[in-house]
Amino acid sequence: MKDLILNLAPTGMVPTRAMSSAVPLSPDEIIADCRLCADLGATILHIHARDEDGRPTFRKDIYARIIAGIRETHPDVIICVSLSGRNFPEFERRSDPLQLTGDLRPDMASLTLSSLNFARTESINAPDMVARLAKTMEDRGIRPELEVFDAGMVNYARYLADRGILKPPFYFNVLLGNLSSAQVTPLHLAAITQDLPPESVWCAGGIGESQLAANTLGLLFGNGVRTGLEDFLWLDADRTQPATNEKLVSRVSELCTLLGKRFASASQVREALGMTPHAG
Amino acid sequence: MKDLILNLAPTGMVPTRAMSSAVPLSPDEIIADCRLCADLGATILHIHARDEDGRPTFRKDIYARIIAGIRETHPDVIICVSLSGRNFPEFERRSDPLQLTGDLRPDMASLTLSSLNFARTESINAPDMVARLAKTMEDRGIRPELEVFDAGMVNYARYLADRGILKPPFYFNVLLGNLSSAQVTPLHLAAITQDLPPESVWCAGGIGESQLAANTLGLLFGNGVRTGLEDFLWLDADRTQPATNEKLVSRVSELCTLLGKRFASASQVREALGMTPHAG
Repeated sequence: MKDLILNLAPTGMVPTRAMSSAVPLSPDEIIADCRLCADLGATILHIHARDEDGRPTFRKDIYARIIAGIRETHPDVIICVSLSGRNFPEFERRSDPLQLTGDLRPDMASLTLSSLNFARTESINAPDMVARLAKTMEDRGIRPELEVFDAGMVNYARYLADRGILKPPFYFNVLLGNLSSAQVTPLHLAAITQDLPPESVWCAGGIGESQLAANTLGLLFGNGVRTGLEDFLWLDADRTQPATNEKLVSRVSELCTLLGKRFASASQVREALGMTPHAG
Repeated sequence: MKDLILNLAPTGMVPTRAMSSAVPLSPDEIIADCRLCADLGATILHIHARDEDGRPTFRKDIYARIIAGIRETHPDVIICVSLSGRNFPEFERRSDPLQLTGDLRPDMASLTLSSLNFARTESINAPDMVARLAKTMEDRGIRPELEVFDAGMVNYARYLADRGILKPPFYFNVLLGNLSSAQVTPLHLAAITQDLPPESVWCAGGIGESQLAANTLGLLFGNGVRTGLEDFLWLDADRTQPATNEKLVSRVSELCTLLGKRFASASQVREALGMTPHAG
């Protein structure tokens, strides 16, 4: 595709109200941020639900409220649910949001392609878990948002694609700057992107201070960006200017224009990814 | 250092007698292979102990038998014990071989720098486990054999080095070709080796069919090789010629000579790594 993708990750697993007054935690807050950012050009929304106490949750009833709220005003935007196993490792809990059907069925779900370490904790995605989540997604018509943190995860994606466990076109989020993973350097990016399988599109996101540079690389060399408060709560590396999702999206939009590119519409992204409009 | 290191991993966690008639499993078998390969130029021995049933074990009494047996005839060779957590995740079991003292104290112990997936299972090395194992090694005068499978693990090594948790000189085994990790390509190797901290030496090993190419890259561009039946049970990619540790060591020795290089002696490697002769 010629035009670019703007993928927003507004919440994540880690941010709390104490860490950011701007991070959306309740369903209503997440819906409001997603609507606002969709108006500004976000076409994929990578959602993490939080429970009544603001803690990460797998509960499909909360995902359902968020999905319904976003689609009420933005039926075309692509909604991706998180299946992170960091806080709830069991398949049944991780895959709970995949049980949603009809108008509430998510378009995509995240699929991290290996185990890795974050700064303080491990994130376990054993080979059989990855395969089982991929199979469940396929059975339910939900597309994987493939999360790649280092070169080897692309090799594993190719392995799964060769065996038909993943099917094209492939959508990758290339996430740079995690402490134990690839960094935001041209060499590391090349080591990841050079071997992506045919029919891949990829967006670049950056953890922490890497966010801005990674987003810029995604605009220059990739199919777009993944940005949002999930990855960094500040606009600047010195952490003096608190970010909001609106400000992060506005900034990548300005960058995109300055670099002579433009973002695709949600329906264009759906077409490029071979996605029909959602069941609703 | 100018001359090269030959690191032998004779056994590993996975090979069984059914898979290979040549893999050394009992202490006596491991001692015999290590003595033979030390005579052929191996200067670091990366040991995995097996219990009476041939299964991987953390037990220091078995490591003690192996270490004593090797040192009886080869007091200079550098002995590295495995602290793999794949089968026994708890710190107390993983670190059991670090309790050996005096003549039985290992020179080095393996330290994998992040969690990752192998082909069938996850290998969990959470950040606090890595730091705790490193601290215990330092307290006991045992040097870490830093295991790197992908670019990000080097970043984590730098992070630990910046905080004094790892101290130079650093010894790295760069392991290429694991299904979910960096592959044996010049680009992936560059992404790993370009950012190694100052005062690093590194040897290259390859998982499965990658072993021969990775070993060759280690001879050409690194400080040596890690080879052995742990990584691949065959001499050829078509798996028609069963390997032995002796044959693998002889082959890298021939390659080394053909490439105009030579292997250092154990005492030269000790000096380069800032290791005094063992307490015995």
